[in-house]
This record gives sequence, structure tokens and C-alpha cells, in this order.
Amino acid sequence: MSEHTTTDRSAEAKITDAQSAALALANLPESTRNDALHAVADAIEDNADAILDANNRDVEAAEELLEAGEYTRAFVDRLTLSASKLDGIAEMVRSVAGQDDPLGRTLAARELDDDLELYKVSVPIGVLGAVFESRPDALVQIAALSLKSGNAVVLKGGSEATHSNRLLHETIVEAAADAGGEVSDGWAQLIEAREDVRTLLERDDAVDLLMPRGSSSFVSYVQNNTSIPVLGHTEGVCHVYVDSEAELGMAEDVAYDAKVQYPAVCNAVETLLVHESVAQTFLPEIADRYREAGVELRGDERTREIIDAEVAIEDDWRTEYGDLILAITVVDSVADAIRHINANGSKHTESIITEDDDAAARFMRGIDAASVFHNASTRFADGYRFGLGAEVGISTGKTHARGPVGLEGLTTYKYHLEGDGQLVAAYAGENPRPFTHTEFDGAWTPGRLSDRDA
Amino acid sequence: MSEHTTTDRSAEAKITDAQSAALALANLPESTRNDALHAVADAIEDNADAILDANNRDVEAAEELLEAGEYTRAFVDRLTLSASKLDGIAEMVRSVAGQDDPLGRTLAARELDDDLELYKVSVPIGVLGAVFESRPDALVQIAALSLKSGNAVVLKGGSEATHSNRLLHETIVEAAADAGGEVSDGWAQLIEAREDVRTLLERDDAVDLLMPRGSSSFVSYVQNNTSIPVLGHTEGVCHVYVDSEAELGMAEDVAYDAKVQYPAVCNAVETLLVHESVAQTFLPEIADRYREAGVELRGDERTREIIDAEVAIEDDWRTEYGDLILAITVVDSVADAIRHINANGSKHTESIITEDDDAAARFMRGIDAASVFHNASTRFADGYRFGLGAEVGISTGKTHARGPVGLEGLTTYKYHLEGDGQLVAAYAGENPRPFTHTEFDGAWTPGRLSDRDA
Repeated sequence: MSEHTTTDRSAEAKITDAQSAALALANLPESTRNDALHAVADAIEDNADAILDANNRDVEAAEELLEAGEYTRAFVDRLTLSASKLDGIAEMVRSVAGQDDPLGRTLAARELDDDLELYKVSVPIGVLGAVFESRPDALVQIAALSLKSGNAVVLKGGSEATHSNRLLHETIVEAAADAGGEVSDGWAQLIEAREDVRTLLERDDAVDLLMPRGSSSFVSYVQNNTSIPVLGHTEGVCHVYVDSEAELGMAEDVAYDAKVQYPAVCNAVETLLVHESVAQTFLPEIADRYREAGVELRGDERTREIIDAEVAIEDDWRTEYGDLILAITVVDSVADAIRHINANGSKHTESIITEDDDAAARFMRGIDAASVFHNASTRFADGYRFGLGAEVGISTGKTHARGPVGLEGLTTYKYHLEGDGQLVAAYAGENPRPFTHTEFDGAWTPGRLSDRDA
Repeated sequence: MSEHTTTDRSAEAKITDAQSAALALANLPESTRNDALHAVADAIEDNADAILDANNRDVEAAEELLEAGEYTRAFVDRLTLSASKLDGIAEMVRSVAGQDDPLGRTLAARELDDDLELYKVSVPIGVLGAVFESRPDALVQIAALSLKSGNAVVLKGGSEATHSNRLLHETIVEAAADAGGEVSDGWAQLIEAREDVRTLLERDDAVDLLMPRGSSSFVSYVQNNTSIPVLGHTEGVCHVYVDSEAELGMAEDVAYDAKVQYPAVCNAVETLLVHESVAQTFLPEIADRYREAGVELRGDERTREIIDAEVAIEDDWRTEYGDLILAITVVDSVADAIRHINANGSKHTESIITEDDDAAARFMRGIDAASVFHNASTRFADGYRFGLGAEVGISTGKTHARGPVGLEGLTTYKYHLEGDGQLVAAYAGENPRPFTHTEFDGAWTPGRLSDRDA
């Protein structure tokens, strides 16, 4: 196999190619996109040995940098593929193929007048730009989600995964092209150089949505250096608030699960808020359980009057530890809890534990976050658990898509208007013809009006 | 009345105030928002004399600049208010009050497991930033749409309307505050200095959506100088394509309506494409009608072989004339029409005239634009005509909201999860509990689970 396709053309040219490919890709039937995804999954299995060899070259280089202290063990682990990881990747691609088609759905239909019908139809966004680090499986997952949703994609992986990414990219593109020959050339582009990221961020003429994955500072860098819409999140500073009317056994289990079940992820809790009326009872119990699990506790003054904890400083309230560390504050009311969370949270996921429905409603309405939970662990904030299918990402932005985002987040819509020659002149001026503006159930199909008349 | 409220605080402080106000505003009941809107409408009528006086100061200054050749007559006309214009503005505010509440709607409901229910609920976006020119009625319209949708708003009008804008802003804010006293102080902020626009564009920590209105170059400037999402459009280069299977009488009427009915607006046609097989018959007829209406025609070579027209140069295919000028090209196929439009259009509104449903479907699927029409005038692309109610704007961006945008475009959503203490630990690891993931009809209400159990 040649590596020329990925290395001998400029990032500018590749992005322009993706833009052309997107127009054709948008109109592929579902069966063609799914056939191509199955071919991609098969090809990953068939080329497993070569992919593992390429990955091994990356891993060997990374081990040297690990010894030199530049990489962490976790970083090298994420980079490392194995036969069973590759099987999992192939299965993931097949499961994306098996999801409902996000395209061509009629989201709304409205009669504007006799024989004048408006349809809002789901379509791909166009060209996605994905920048990710370390994990080569991210490349396959993003490419699969893009193909399923009819979007072209420009992929930029980390330099540490160069050999893995090149071979995976080549495998995917060749498999998709061979699967019936209908998938537009150029739908998935790999760019490699660090300076190509800058090019990508500048191409607002061609790239419709950016999906950065990586450290909080990296996502912030992307957000601050482009006018292209960004789907992503910089951090998850999530909270659990134990209300005065909480069932304390439940509160203990949820607060424990939210921190300990998987502390490294963005929907783990970072600050626990406890109503002063239950703090004396609740805090010693939960503190014991946390300590058994090795959680370091940092508390405000009122917390430290009740349990042993390090002093929480101002920064603690805004820190995503991503680790077995938890900040704790005692508050006087639901209103105080809401204020603290809106002032310090990252608009990701917040949970209240209470048997008082009014308090829960005040919390859920008052908190400005993508996900607000009542009597459930923050860890449920996830595309799979929410039933959205494959997760595209979690967004803490407030427009387009918010919270856990599924394939629907990679679509937009188009208005189709079917008429029989209507002119605006008839609906304007004196004695304008009125609109009927009636919603109806119906899907856009070609020649909808003529079919109906027949 | 004092003008201190608008002039003695920095734009930074005003934007931060809007951010605080937004949190409270988001939770106002519909009746409070509607009462405030009716109070605003009444106050505009009650203060009509003072508003017209203030406007007169702006108009007098503008007339001087008109004489000096710096302003156009149309610009001064847009700036000028009258008693009847003010009545129209008050009516517009009342009609916004009368629209369906865009907030608190349950957009989807899904059971994740027994007693674990997920609701997707519509909420305000937060803080809007609106920058507009000349028309003081824009200030009232944007403020009314913001209040209805529970968003705080930072308003920046043109310096030519300074006195009008100050008094309108003060009138609105006082009326809303007096209407029951529940509308949060600071929900509508007026900023005035040119350098304050720069401040607004930089406040991505506080402003969630920008709505620039004005010239194409101004909207481009905003898009290129902020990382805040932008709702708007730079230009409308719209097309009508007359297919080989067009009913030519219909084609003539639609092509005429799309250009002549109101040439200054963004949904008017700028380029007419005609299939070569009907060009010989169609072009002389439509050219006669256009000439009678004073439309200047610019054609490619094949057009000019059939009718008299100026030579169209490359720039003509990408120009929004906004005037009685039309470019015409003869094409060989639907595919050629699609290619021309995707290469030169502005993704706004495109129309095909044909009796061939397959050709129409290919066109509607193949064109990358917010609105694609079959046998209807491009002029229908409008929030009111689409039945969306008050129009927030037209977006040629591809994420969040596309095409004509109604109040829904000023909302986002939040996930509410109602549980009874569920932990992720139970759904992970070995023998994980399965999710049920079943959609159901139902609206989120406080204590939904406890109500149901009772």
C-alpha cells in the first residue's frame, strides 16, 4: 500500500476535496452507506496484522518517550492497539451501520396553502473537522459516524499515532470505495502536520463543524481560534446536591457512584453540596465510604467542622479533578446550591437528591446545564445510557446540540417546499390571499403534490 | 427621564449584568413574560410623542449627512419613525406575546429503565447579542423576541439612531419592570460605542448567540471576529432553474415574481438558469416581461444568442444585486444547474420549475441550501410565510438553525432525568442491568415519578 494519498497533497487541497465529496455523499442511499460501513469493518479485521504492525512502530517510539519522561503510561496505553481492541473497533463500526438512518427524516410538515406544502427534512451538515489525540480507534469511530450521517470528514490525529492512523485511514477509504463504488472519493481526508490544524480552523468556507477531542486546554484553543461552530466540551465540573429532604441512604449511594465508579470521566462528580440540616448525619457516613475507596476530601469550613478534610481553596470549586478527589461544601438552601453551581459549574451535569418534588423542580429549572438529574447519578450523562446510540461527543455549548450528542447532532435540516406555481404577489399587497398554515403528518417524497392529486 | 442607565456603565459591566439576569429570566412563567410584553406595547403607545421627538433629533442630524452625501435617502427613511410606524411596532410586540410559548416544551421523552425517565425540555439559550443598523424598530422587535423566549439581550444599534434607541430602550425596560415587578433587572442592555461591539464579540464567556443584522460585509465581519455562534446571513444569491419539463407559463410567472415583486430582499432571485431545450421559447417571453418592469438583463453567450442582454461576467454569478438586475445562463441539464448553484449560490433559497418529479427530487436533494423549492417563488422563504410566527432572522449557517428562523431558534434544550436513586455501577461491569430505552409520549412535570406512582 502506498502512503502517498495522505502525504503528498496539501491540507488546503484535501479540505477542498472533502467539500466536493460532501455534496455527492449527502445523496447516497442508506443501503450504500451501510454496505460501505460493513466493508470497513471487514477490512479492519482482514488487515489486522498490518494494522498491528503499524501500531507497533508508533508504540515503540512512544515507549522511548515514556522512558524519557515525556509521555505517561496511560497515554501509551491509549495508543496501543491489540487484536481484541481491533475486533471491538470492527464491531463498533457494524453497530453504527445498524443504527437508524439519521438522514431524510421529515421533521415537520406544514400546509401553507392549497397545494403548497413545506417539509423540514434532515440532511448532513457537510464537512466535519475532527482533531483528536492518541487513540487510533477515535479515527475509525469518527469516520464511521461521518459516513453513516452522510458527512465528509477531515481527520487530524496525534503525531504519536502517525503510522496507525495512516494505515487505518487507507484501509477505511479503500474498503468504502470498493463497496459498490458509489462512495464519493475524498469523503475522508487525513491531515498530519501540526500547522495543518491552523489551516483547518481557518477554512470556514469549507468546514461546517469542528469536533475537537482532547485536553480541556486543547478544546479551548480550538474554540478561541476559529469561527467554525465547535461541538465539544472543555471540562466537566459536575455536582451532586444532597437536599434537606434527601433519602440519605440513596444520597450516599449516588454520591459514591458519581465519584468512585469511574473518576476519570467528565460526568463524574467533582463537588458535593450538602444541606446544613443533614450535614451532621450525612457527611460522616459518606466520608467513611469515600475514604475506603481512597478518595481525598477537601472541604469548606463548615464541612471541616464535621469531618476530616483538607482545606478547599477557591480553585477547588472550579476544578475538574478527573481523579479520586472531591470538594465538599455545606449550603443553607436549594437556592444557595443553585447559585454555587451556576457560578462554578461547567454546564455539564448536575444532580439533586431529594424527596421534595418542589425542591427538585426548582433545581432542575434553575440550573443552567445540559443535564440536570433528580435522584440519579451524574454518570448517566452519556449518549449510550441516554439511548442516543453511538455518542458523537458531549457538548457544553448551548446552540445546535447540547449534552450527550448522538448521530442527530451531525445532521441539520433543509426546507423542501412543493408548490404548483404559487407567487408571493398573490399573498401580498391589498386583499392578500391568506395562508392556511396547518401542520400535518406526512413525509416528503418526490412529487408529493402530484402523487396526492393522482 | 434620565439617560444615565445607558451611558454611565461600561459595556463589560452591562454584559455581565445581562448574564446574571438571564438565569432568573429563564424561569419566568409564560404569563409574566406576556404581561410584560403587553406593558411594553402600551408604553410605546403612551410615550409616542416623546419617542417621535427623540427620533426627530436623529433624523435632523441624518438629513444633514444626507445633504453632505454621506447617507442615502433610503437610509434616512429607515431611520424615520412616525405615529403609524409606532402603532405597527406596538402591534408587533402584542403579536409576539400572542405566539405559543417556545419554553418548557418536552421535545422527547424516553424511559431508560423502570423509574428512570429522560425528558428533553426546551429552555432559553441565555444571553443574545444583537447588532443592527438604522431602523429603531429593530431594537423593539429583538427585545420583544428575547423577552418572549426568556433570553437576556445586549442591544447595539447604529449611532445614527442614538436618541431613538435610548428612549425606546428606557421605555421597554421600565414598562417590563413595572409589569408585576417580576422581570429581572438588566435583561435588556443597550451598548452604544463602536468599540463596544469589539467587547461584545469577545465575551464568549457571557454571550451565547450573536444576531447581526446589516450589510453583508458587516455580518461577515462579525462572523470572522468572534468565537460566539452567529445566527444570520451575509447574502442571498438565489436561483430559479427552468427545467426542460417546466410548464413555461408557470415558469414565467414564478421567475417574474421572484425578481420583480420585491427586488431589494435577500430571497429575490439573482440568477435565472434555463434548460437549453426550452431557452429558445422561454427566454424571449420572459425577457419582454422583465423589460417592461425595468429589469436589466445580463446573459452568458448562449443567452445572448437568443435575447438582447448585457454580457454577464464571472462576478455576476455570485452577486446579490438587490435590485432590478438579473443574470441569465443556459444550462444543459439538471446536473449542470445543480453544479452552477452549489458553486455560486449562498445556500439561501433555490427553486426548480418542472413537471418532472424525478428532476425535482434530484434538484431538491442535490442542492446545498437552506430552502429548496419546487414550482414556487423563492420569495416564499420567510418566517411569516413558512408559518413560523415572528421571524428572528434568516440563517445561511448550517448548524443550530437554518433558513427562516422563528422563536424556536432562540431556544435550546436541557435534559431532565427523573430517577429513584439509580447508580451507574448497576449498569456496568459484569452482568450489567440492561436499559429499556423506550420512547413515550409525556411532558416533564415536577415529581413526575412520584405522581405516577401515586
